[in-house]
Amino acid sequence: MNILIIGAAGMIGRKLTSALIARKALAGKPIRQIELVDVVAPEPVTGGGIAISARAVDISDPKVAPGLISRRPDVIFHLAAIVSGEAELDFDKGYAINLDGTRHLFEAIRQEGLAQPYCPRVIFTSSIAVFGAPFPDRIGDEFFQTPLTSYGTQKAIGELLLSDYSRRGFLDGVGIRLPTICIRPGAPNKAASGFFSSILREPLVGQQAVLPVDESVRHWHASPRAAVGFLIRAAEMDTAILGARRNLNMPGLSATVGEQIEALRRVAGDKAVALIRREPDAMIAGIVGGWARDFDAARAISLGFQADGSFDEIIRIHIEDELGGDIPS
Amino acid sequence: MNILIIGAAGMIGRKLTSALIARKALAGKPIRQIELVDVVAPEPVTGGGIAISARAVDISDPKVAPGLISRRPDVIFHLAAIVSGEAELDFDKGYAINLDGTRHLFEAIRQEGLAQPYCPRVIFTSSIAVFGAPFPDRIGDEFFQTPLTSYGTQKAIGELLLSDYSRRGFLDGVGIRLPTICIRPGAPNKAASGFFSSILREPLVGQQAVLPVDESVRHWHASPRAAVGFLIRAAEMDTAILGARRNLNMPGLSATVGEQIEALRRVAGDKAVALIRREPDAMIAGIVGGWARDFDAARAISLGFQADGSFDEIIRIHIEDELGGDIPS
Repeated sequence: MNILIIGAAGMIGRKLTSALIARKALAGKPIRQIELVDVVAPEPVTGGGIAISARAVDISDPKVAPGLISRRPDVIFHLAAIVSGEAELDFDKGYAINLDGTRHLFEAIRQEGLAQPYCPRVIFTSSIAVFGAPFPDRIGDEFFQTPLTSYGTQKAIGELLLSDYSRRGFLDGVGIRLPTICIRPGAPNKAASGFFSSILREPLVGQQAVLPVDESVRHWHASPRAAVGFLIRAAEMDTAILGARRNLNMPGLSATVGEQIEALRRVAGDKAVALIRREPDAMIAGIVGGWARDFDAARAISLGFQADGSFDEIIRIHIEDELGGDIPS
Repeated sequence: MNILIIGAAGMIGRKLTSALIARKALAGKPIRQIELVDVVAPEPVTGGGIAISARAVDISDPKVAPGLISRRPDVIFHLAAIVSGEAELDFDKGYAINLDGTRHLFEAIRQEGLAQPYCPRVIFTSSIAVFGAPFPDRIGDEFFQTPLTSYGTQKAIGELLLSDYSRRGFLDGVGIRLPTICIRPGAPNKAASGFFSSILREPLVGQQAVLPVDESVRHWHASPRAAVGFLIRAAEMDTAILGARRNLNMPGLSATVGEQIEALRRVAGDKAVALIRREPDAMIAGIVGGWARDFDAARAISLGFQADGSFDEIIRIHIEDELGGDIPS
């Protein structure tokens, strides 16, 4: 089993790499090689008996994907993307990476298979940003794609390509629409969704955080641990059951910002909550106002994808995985 | 008012051109120029006081769109496409024309506007092929896009681009998902839907026609006259009311093949019906089996788009517009 992870230097990519090394196998087969690529070289990691390589590549360059695919990985995790805020600010860059980069990858796989039979499993991380307001209170599995950002548009197009290339037998794709990842560890990125993590992550270590929207804002979340679980499930599942509908709303946890804050209070006390500073930001409020709040992800749940149980659990996962199991008192 | 029609040599393009010449105005403004382009040069037409030019261009060539757009048309009808059967047989050609050609056009409009403000109305003919089975009995306005053909995939991607370019203010787009056009005049094309017209068109002039599917097959239809009406409405409507949801299911007429045949019997008698020969074709039945059967096109109807009243009317429109008002007895 040879695995390629595109976007491996990102947070989910690094956690996925660690999880694969710990599991040693995928879909019942021992993992022999993992190739890690990203626009910046992923940190070198060692993996017992697994040969792991890491390097920097630019997937918007059409010459790159054929080189990656010439090694014929069995499973490809395509996680690379320009995030929503940046794709909105830089129209050309967003389309170059999120649309052209994805298309170059799928096309390289097709060309490899035309030369000699090849049909790898491709897991594509899409996003609930493929949906745009107005919404029903809970979005079902058959709700239409009307993104309100260029990022969401690019993800929706990637999904359509994934389905068509799968239907034609060029690859074996599963698109997973991730909830917003919470609590995202490390430094803030340019995603407009950053505050959903920041208002929990910073107070847990005694630092101030900025809340740019109202506490009534409801959103859809999954922990990094749940997200890695989705990726592994997508790599191991029987795709015959998907038919031509290759893109799935992942299960998640629906919560208001106020409910997030109350979970923080239960886990870390009033002192932590007091570190959240309100600074309304109309641009962020505008973007987030167009995002989905809640889903009925019945199809993915029936296919074995599992969400977090509560926001208290999401916070405790962060404390276990990022803070060594404890918070400063 | 300067108008550009891309795909002007096709049946809808020619009828649209005639309708515009007859109307002399669009959205209350006199039409001064019409540029007709297609992959083969559209037939030259004269239009009273309207300056009409016609030429062959290949929209998959990225150098073509900037030239077309440099003349800054006020309204652009983008009708050009590789049809469903051909896009399924020639993967590269379908993507080159239907996806890349559309993207080059939208991008040329954006670049023109970045140089000097410009935001033309763009009417994009999409298709109900953006939907794929299984369906509800009637497809509503918020049903998800899961095409089962490469053509449908390319149209769904064009819609997403149209919406994003409209949202960003680069163009003022309206995507109209046309029902299958019936009765399509002239010679059969490579569309898998061709028989829906053929089984009426050929018998009306005393010729045999082939029916490759069962009479129970239900489908969604509009006459050429209704389709041209949709295009004009899309060019004239107030788009502010659309918000970010720029793509509309057009109204149509839902009928089984058996109901089509009964309408033919009412209009042209048993002798015409006897000219339909059953020749089941598994490939066509398979493609058509993935197509939509009926819609609740409430949104488009509320926006003033009007469908045909009955299949008898669809047949009579063909007799009026194509056969000089009468059929051979």
